[in-house]
Amino acid sequence: MTNHRIALIPGDGIGTEVLPAAQQVLDVLGRRHGFGLTYTSYDDWSCERYLREGAMMPADGLDQLRDKDAILLGAVGHPEVPDHVSLWGLLIPIRRGFRQYVNLRPIRVFEGIESPVRTARAGAVDFVVVRENVEGEYSQVGGRFNSGFPDELAVQEAVFTRAGVSRVLDYAFGLAARRGGRLTSATKSNGIVHTMPFWDELVAERASGFPQVAWDQEHIDALAAKFVLEPGRFDVVVASNLFGDILSDLAAAIAGSIGIAPAANLNPERAYPSMFEPVHGSAPDIAGQGVANPLGAIWSAAMMLDHLGHPAAAKDVTDAVAGVLAKTDVRTRDLGGTATTAEFTDKLLELL
Amino acid sequence: MTNHRIALIPGDGIGTEVLPAAQQVLDVLGRRHGFGLTYTSYDDWSCERYLREGAMMPADGLDQLRDKDAILLGAVGHPEVPDHVSLWGLLIPIRRGFRQYVNLRPIRVFEGIESPVRTARAGAVDFVVVRENVEGEYSQVGGRFNSGFPDELAVQEAVFTRAGVSRVLDYAFGLAARRGGRLTSATKSNGIVHTMPFWDELVAERASGFPQVAWDQEHIDALAAKFVLEPGRFDVVVASNLFGDILSDLAAAIAGSIGIAPAANLNPERAYPSMFEPVHGSAPDIAGQGVANPLGAIWSAAMMLDHLGHPAAAKDVTDAVAGVLAKTDVRTRDLGGTATTAEFTDKLLELL
Ligand SMILES: CC(C)[C@H](C(=O)O)[C@@H](O)C(=O)O
Ligand SMILES: CC(C)[C@H](C(=O)O)[C@@H](O)C(=O)O
Repeated sequence: MTNHRIALIPGDGIGTEVLPAAQQVLDVLGRRHGFGLTYTSYDDWSCERYLREGAMMPADGLDQLRDKDAILLGAVGHPEVPDHVSLWGLLIPIRRGFRQYVNLRPIRVFEGIESPVRTARAGAVDFVVVRENVEGEYSQVGGRFNSGFPDELAVQEAVFTRAGVSRVLDYAFGLAARRGGRLTSATKSNGIVHTMPFWDELVAERASGFPQVAWDQEHIDALAAKFVLEPGRFDVVVASNLFGDILSDLAAAIAGSIGIAPAANLNPERAYPSMFEPVHGSAPDIAGQGVANPLGAIWSAAMMLDHLGHPAAAKDVTDAVAGVLAKTDVRTRDLGGTATTAEFTDKLLELL
Repeated sequence: MTNHRIALIPGDGIGTEVLPAAQQVLDVLGRRHGFGLTYTSYDDWSCERYLREGAMMPADGLDQLRDKDAILLGAVGHPEVPDHVSLWGLLIPIRRGFRQYVNLRPIRVFEGIESPVRTARAGAVDFVVVRENVEGEYSQVGGRFNSGFPDELAVQEAVFTRAGVSRVLDYAFGLAARRGGRLTSATKSNGIVHTMPFWDELVAERASGFPQVAWDQEHIDALAAKFVLEPGRFDVVVASNLFGDILSDLAAAIAGSIGIAPAANLNPERAYPSMFEPVHGSAPDIAGQGVANPLGAIWSAAMMLDHLGHPAAAKDVTDAVAGVLAKTDVRTRDLGGTATTAEFTDKLLELL
């Protein structure tokens, strides 16, 4: 029996509540589809640890994860820890250290969820945001000049490499070729005059290897507008680190719930473990009450199963997610209901 | 009788069709409210000129505009001219040369326009995006390294100055104090670790001068989502050049039409002329057919009247814009109708 070694990093807040739900679902699938999952938990890699010991994870953190087949992460963030400290101390080092250069965020409008956007009907919206995940606008290059003086300034350097952009574009074009055959590149070459025209050139260059894919490019401002105006027209949307971040949260809202949205941080070459995490954050306002929506974590676990070579098991999970929304009225608070995390998970397990 | 010297730059595409409509409206208002408007037209400052002569405007372009009281611009952009060429050759030099550091974009859902967002009802959505307009992510600092080689990379430097950020924040806080007393700052200090934490610090610092304003800050990804989820909860949203660009287009889409959205590029000190322009672009696909929506240009003209010291005249115009939408079913193609630019303008003039 195949066995997969899974690292569990619950992190902060509701991360610690949704991860056990995902684990329950995974275990059922493992039994049904005949694979094993062995978990190693890193329970104290969190902001609590940072507040106690000054570091989000141990110095050899990445080494501890390196031999795992995949990482399932809950959420990172704490009211008393600045976000750039918590994220650059845990989430971002894992993404970068393990060359998880693809951040994959599927967007679906499910039956049983009312989208805030009138035209976003169940079945009609089904696309994927492919976000460049390890370079670009998120960089540590930059700093302050004349701190505290009237002429103070801060600079931030975005760094886009030919290799880094090309590989994520190749992934996105390949995905479009396997899906609906359409790709939209998010850009801003009218305002961001060095890196974005470079991105556009590389899109045109990589596109030549995928003649079966119809592609276009849209300025990020116009594209954000089109997400709201015509959400049904997209198939694969590829974007830089920052633009992908914005577009995928926007798309999750259009789909009707950030609580359901999943993300995969992929190292497509499988030289390193990939990481799976719900899009929602640690939600300190509802943490500890057992009312968090577990679907984001559960759908992320499905993406993990797909990555580990179990597409049928993954489909069972997404079918169950769709089923619990379409066929029952059990809902957590974020979806307008009163169910607890456990009740919502149990209902989904019933359907499974 | 007060007389105002207005520079008209129709620019490209539908810019040349909507500006005359705005001018008709302005003339009516001048007669009614007792002020004069003297126009100077810069008809060939455009991409056509660039294609012919290699420059969007003459070398002394800014000097020609300097003695004007305001500038009304149509649109810039042409299929055969890369956007970064056309924009950095005309629009951006004017914004920067004349220190138009505030880009003001009001968002209203009008009766008679169906927003794509269910909860965005007429009257319930009325806010303003204040965009930093002359620095930040739009900079010419950066370039390519090892062009054409496998290790090629491009860098782009965002530059945020204490003076530049503080003045736009002061403007935004002041506006919030005069409006609903609430301000939201768009930021991304978890990912953009140098300039965005600097922005956040300056927000906290400037806020202390406006104790009557309740303010918060939101990460740009979450904020884009909230625009869709709760568009009615905003009053003044202040953002960097790039974030303001994205948020204002998104907000215009949520309001139901990019064709109606106006923008003011303000030099609040009035040391230089300010510039007013619709948010929509040159729309080459419909240019030359006389079917463009003139309301964006007309509402921009209203913002110009307000800036020139004629708030009552400005209100007449926005009332007429609201009236033509609420009380008639005349609509241009972008709004689902069949009216021409001239017919739509005539109907509005009737109501005026
Ligand atoms: C055309 C482009 C440079 C411009 C901008 O981003 O400033 C436009 O999108 C706008 O919002 O005025
Ligand atoms: C928390 C933050 C750094 C992160 C990001 O922007 O990458 C988050 O928004 C996400 O999308 O995973």
